[in-house]
Amino acid sequence: MIAQTLGPISREERAGRAKEAFDHLETSLDALVLFDDQFIFYYSGFAFFPTERPIALIITRDGQRVLFVPRLEREHAGQTSEAERVVDYPEFPGQPHPMGQLADLLGELGLEQARLGVDHDGYPSVMGYDGPALSGQLAGATVQRVSRALDHQMALKSPAEVTLIRESARWGAHAHHLLQTYTRVGENETEVEARATKEATAAMIAALGDGYRGQNRWMSGAVALYRGQIGEYSALPHAMTTGATFRHGDTLVTGAGAAIWGYLSELERTMFLGEANAEQRRFFQHMLNLQDIAFDALRPGRTCAQVDQAVRAYYEREGLWDHWRHHVGHSLGQRIHESPFLDIGDDRPLEPGMVLSVEPGLYVPGLGGFRHSDTILITANGMELLTDYPRDLDSLILPA
Amino acid sequence: MIAQTLGPISREERAGRAKEAFDHLETSLDALVLFDDQFIFYYSGFAFFPTERPIALIITRDGQRVLFVPRLEREHAGQTSEAERVVDYPEFPGQPHPMGQLADLLGELGLEQARLGVDHDGYPSVMGYDGPALSGQLAGATVQRVSRALDHQMALKSPAEVTLIRESARWGAHAHHLLQTYTRVGENETEVEARATKEATAAMIAALGDGYRGQNRWMSGAVALYRGQIGEYSALPHAMTTGATFRHGDTLVTGAGAAIWGYLSELERTMFLGEANAEQRRFFQHMLNLQDIAFDALRPGRTCAQVDQAVRAYYEREGLWDHWRHHVGHSLGQRIHESPFLDIGDDRPLEPGMVLSVEPGLYVPGLGGFRHSDTILITANGMELLTDYPRDLDSLILPA
Repeated sequence: MIAQTLGPISREERAGRAKEAFDHLETSLDALVLFDDQFIFYYSGFAFFPTERPIALIITRDGQRVLFVPRLEREHAGQTSEAERVVDYPEFPGQPHPMGQLADLLGELGLEQARLGVDHDGYPSVMGYDGPALSGQLAGATVQRVSRALDHQMALKSPAEVTLIRESARWGAHAHHLLQTYTRVGENETEVEARATKEATAAMIAALGDGYRGQNRWMSGAVALYRGQIGEYSALPHAMTTGATFRHGDTLVTGAGAAIWGYLSELERTMFLGEANAEQRRFFQHMLNLQDIAFDALRPGRTCAQVDQAVRAYYEREGLWDHWRHHVGHSLGQRIHESPFLDIGDDRPLEPGMVLSVEPGLYVPGLGGFRHSDTILITANGMELLTDYPRDLDSLILPA
Repeated sequence: MIAQTLGPISREERAGRAKEAFDHLETSLDALVLFDDQFIFYYSGFAFFPTERPIALIITRDGQRVLFVPRLEREHAGQTSEAERVVDYPEFPGQPHPMGQLADLLGELGLEQARLGVDHDGYPSVMGYDGPALSGQLAGATVQRVSRALDHQMALKSPAEVTLIRESARWGAHAHHLLQTYTRVGENETEVEARATKEATAAMIAALGDGYRGQNRWMSGAVALYRGQIGEYSALPHAMTTGATFRHGDTLVTGAGAAIWGYLSELERTMFLGEANAEQRRFFQHMLNLQDIAFDALRPGRTCAQVDQAVRAYYEREGLWDHWRHHVGHSLGQRIHESPFLDIGDDRPLEPGMVLSVEPGLYVPGLGGFRHSDTILITANGMELLTDYPRDLDSLILPA
């Protein structure tokens, strides 16, 4: 691997996001008040782990960002966020309650009568948080949920974002390669995962340098995992790690990715330990066909629903409905799952710059699960794979 | 360490919780509809990681539990939850939206005109979830938030819960002992953390046996960490890991605990690499005094606010206000932070069975942070330490 210099999203890009957020709204608003840690990171660069102590980001129409944090986070927010101003309150639950102080701050900013867009009307319930709705604190203001509009802005990845996601995919593939190499009959799931993850992370940090930060809530370093999807347990799409020992004939479903300056990617493969039998081969081929149908359907102008519909038609035609468990995929980038979703219920159109997972699956109780997941970018004319890993059967049969 | 057999909370205890939940409510309700993963685990034993696909637990007045899950989780929920019934919906966003199907299920259960208690009015925004309020789906029902009442039930730990938290504290102390042993000048933060955590986890799994499960969202295995609180960075209460190298004279603030069948504990210590200088000793002693004041104040009948008030009086008297960053502590058990909080704004009384962290701190820019955290149980007459680890200065000066 070639060492290269990669850094966080630039201050200019984040500042631009804050200004441009208003262009994505359906109605004209005076300011945004955001409580979700991922929105706050997206617009201000402040990475933190949400607790019961509310944190809010106010963005005014001119793109000015005011971060509202507990006293505990003042220095941390002052040093690491790109907000133009940081205001702190003493503590939660506190005396008075921080929501009152947030209302006072909005008043001070001249927003007591404003049209406000929010992700939630008040801080969500996290770890025992309890408090009033924001709308109840501001008699003269109107409060309107705009998460869906902001999700749309977040879904349209910039070239800088795609570069980070691509880098994540590169290190996810490296971790996955190690996972595949170390998986042998008689080895232990947890130890193989730990070894692949540790070595891939060390290689990535060596390549990206001391300045590298993951800044992602779902992934840390470069990871490759089974999450318990081994043998017959691979038939449970969201199984849990059990520390299984690998056996000859196991169907395996993997997951890999890496955290790069706040961004992630998703790579999953179905593999077999030793030879695959006729049933395993049959479902593997159906799964490849399903993913190919999705790849073909992914292009600007199509809706998310149409992609799911095209894939569903194959389940129907081939009598595979009993083995269906979920839709085709989801957007991703900062969050491990973002909207829109490749689902019959999501009528949003695909647009260039969207990044999505493509992972239709088949689940056969007693035999196993069959799912590849690739991360793709919607381009001007179709799609481009951001994950680069073999997907054919021969490449995915491990020596027993 | 002596091997012993520990297991999950019994089915009888969880079933009892579901029945008794109604006794904690301020008003008489017909059923509860809960969306929070920690409440769902508490009442039904179903451990899962929340995503944009809604999961809900309905508890009727007679203690019957109906779990509402996506198709993807049907087998997993059927096998691992203790709900009397599992109902699945196809997918989110889906067609129709799952909230409509949840409303239909409530109708089928005869609850379309019911008085419902909820933790949130609808599924909270997780990873791009978007959907209507539950109250908007049920014209004839009343929907009322009862999280605070359920938090109260959850705060009163049973003997079985205290046993699991005590076991967590035991393995947290073991991990912390290894962290202390391996921390030496010139060693790397991340490697020391990884070694202590790996060895403590292996020892714990060997002692608790193959059946052991962590089932905790915040901790996995037995862990001991610095989280970047090393040298002057220890002055940031919520610093982030930077892979620092330990230097002579560093002030260190640690964190340790273990996941035991859904429960956790909290142990934190302030340590010094080599000798502590006069300033470090002075703040260390003040911090011990603050924690002693809190220990003395913790007894049934006192309010949480009174404990924080007693500790705040010492900051005031000793002119330490510039070094204050947060309240005295929080409840914990399943969640890493639960309510009530040891905070001037929390007037709830302490009751036997409550488990709380006690962790007043002092933060001195340029010098470091000073905080011990112990997990305690409120008893009939006072409190009992569940964490058992030296807290005096001599025990916490590491050889340089």
